[in-house]
Amino acid sequence: MSILNRKDIKNRMCEKDYSKKLLITPLLSEDQIGPASVDVRLGSSLVVPKKTYIESQDVTESELVQQVERRRYDRIRLKYHTKFVLHPNTLILGVTYEYISLPFNTFCTVASRSSWGRLGLVVATASVVQPGFRGCLTLELVNLSESPIVLYPGLLVGQLVFYDVQAKGSEEITYDGRYDCPTEAGLPQFFVSRESKVLDREMAFWRKGYNYLQENTDKKELSNCIE
Amino acid sequence: MSILNRKDIKNRMCEKDYSKKLLITPLLSEDQIGPASVDVRLGSSLVVPKKTYIESQDVTESELVQQVERRRYDRIRLKYHTKFVLHPNTLILGVTYEYISLPFNTFCTVASRSSWGRLGLVVATASVVQPGFRGCLTLELVNLSESPIVLYPGLLVGQLVFYDVQAKGSEEITYDGRYDCPTEAGLPQFFVSRESKVLDREMAFWRKGYNYLQENTDKKELSNCIE
Amino acid sequence: MSILNRKDIKNRMCEKDYSKKLLITPLLSEDQIGPASVDVRLGSSLVVPKKTYIESQDVTESELVQQVERRRYDRIRLKYHTKFVLHPNTLILGVTYEYISLPFNTFCTVASRSSWGRLGLVVATASVVQPGFRGCLTLELVNLSESPIVLYPGLLVGQLVFYDVQAKGSEEITYDGRYDCPTEAGLPQFFVSRESKVLDREMAFWRKGYNYLQENTDKKELSNCIE
Repeated sequence: MSILNRKDIKNRMCEKDYSKKLLITPLLSEDQIGPASVDVRLGSSLVVPKKTYIESQDVTESELVQQVERRRYDRIRLKYHTKFVLHPNTLILGVTYEYISLPFNTFCTVASRSSWGRLGLVVATASVVQPGFRGCLTLELVNLSESPIVLYPGLLVGQLVFYDVQAKGSEEITYDGRYDCPTEAGLPQFFVSRESKVLDREMAFWRKGYNYLQENTDKKELSNCIE
Repeated sequence: MSILNRKDIKNRMCEKDYSKKLLITPLLSEDQIGPASVDVRLGSSLVVPKKTYIESQDVTESELVQQVERRRYDRIRLKYHTKFVLHPNTLILGVTYEYISLPFNTFCTVASRSSWGRLGLVVATASVVQPGFRGCLTLELVNLSESPIVLYPGLLVGQLVFYDVQAKGSEEITYDGRYDCPTEAGLPQFFVSRESKVLDREMAFWRKGYNYLQENTDKKELSNCIE
Repeated sequence: MSILNRKDIKNRMCEKDYSKKLLITPLLSEDQIGPASVDVRLGSSLVVPKKTYIESQDVTESELVQQVERRRYDRIRLKYHTKFVLHPNTLILGVTYEYISLPFNTFCTVASRSSWGRLGLVVATASVVQPGFRGCLTLELVNLSESPIVLYPGLLVGQLVFYDVQAKGSEEITYDGRYDCPTEAGLPQFFVSRESKVLDREMAFWRKGYNYLQENTDKKELSNCIE
């Protein structure tokens, strides 16, 4: 077994041991479960980039990134039966209506449903979801066609495909991503911690030449070294 | 086993039990079978969106969708050795030259071959094919580069990767998709049935607030609700 | 097992039998190994398409392809801590900083890391890597957003996901791709051999109607047929 088929998916969703349970909720219709995938809906939370006078997005400059987030994005919450028109060559961030919890033996990818793909809608460009992830999935919605596409919250735009991961070794795995339990469309996060405004040490290094080895022993210096 | 290697692919293609047989035909050269993939050709059927005066593509409006299909797409059949120039930032729909039949223990994804990817050609944005699918695969061809790209029918533009799916539980799986046995580049299909012009009940619900539960017991009302 | 988790990845990296060893080097931080993926860095070699007066990219015309390569691409080597600004709707070719060697029981796909995907950066459109591949991976970097994105060599832009392939039958598999052991961002290669300027026989056939069967017995005629 590699890709989970309908029966495997249902089995993992019915698992009583929570650490092995695949959660996809609310699943409004059982028809959403296909032969080897689960269709997912567009949620009501959207993030829409604004035109700005900022020269470019340099994610290694923490000051700039803070500004960018205030100035560059509009956060929208759509009512049901309200349309959102996605214009050609435009990228917005959306979110799945469903909240997902992946056990450590399950990996997931996100793809467009074929009808939407043929219209020119891409629903995810970073389409990989790690075992242990919990939350609503942020979608990167792009219109590659030459016509505006109308979106409504609740439409089945995407599909999830689930892959089996060996349970062995799962005890040492914890999901250490930055996107823990989101329920809204998420902004990119290039900081270790948003509160402390400490930039990802990786970013800091490659931008400013910070001594990567030293920094493991002296965290304070890291935050000094940025700005 | 997860991804099928060359030997696995050949084994499934030689399977005598039709329900387990992987069909990819015509396979003009055995070289198309790679270490863990099968290269596929561009077929001669193309669907090219036209510029129109339609405001936007709202797939929940059945009247509009019918119009859109008449007005918005040109269906082209290319002769062999005839070129099609795909201009920058343009999306067209193509189809594989090969007819595929996936048994219930096999899942498939479609990707660009690397040379074409480097030119800027994307061959599939909805790149997932469900077990049980039969037909030629519709391709979403997009030119992401700044130069026009010349396509000829028969060129090996894409590759298929095959994944093992557990056979157990397959007896309850039937492919229930809307794209059964196509041999031409397919338009998006958001209707349950093209003849009856009944919109997908999902679409209808999220657009017009139709009572989803009720509709399962009263199909007539559904079509009324779309007017 | 289908997707390799952190433990599986480490096990294959520690394999002593070289034919089964997964090599990813240099891996500057163990943090790059996630629950079921490995983050990879942008290398310093870039290929940037230039605007030209060439009408279109017809990969079946060998003369033109040779010209195109001389005129159409700038090859850049970025110093560390030097920025490269990727403008909206622009495609460049990059390369991973890491050199990869995939054993015959391992298949790999390349995806954007989620933060970069949300900014609008696609890192790979031809995202499949065959078992047996050795080299740095060429990345297709596309900015789908409306703001310029700043890149630095060394930034963790992509992630690799590894899939198990049955070892059985591996003895008959050899990687026969055209991209053997590259360490720089690679141009598309549509020729069997660059020196001899012999076009891929597939290409030649579909363009010019060359007799595919004959050509297997008479290689000379192939090159004549392309003129």
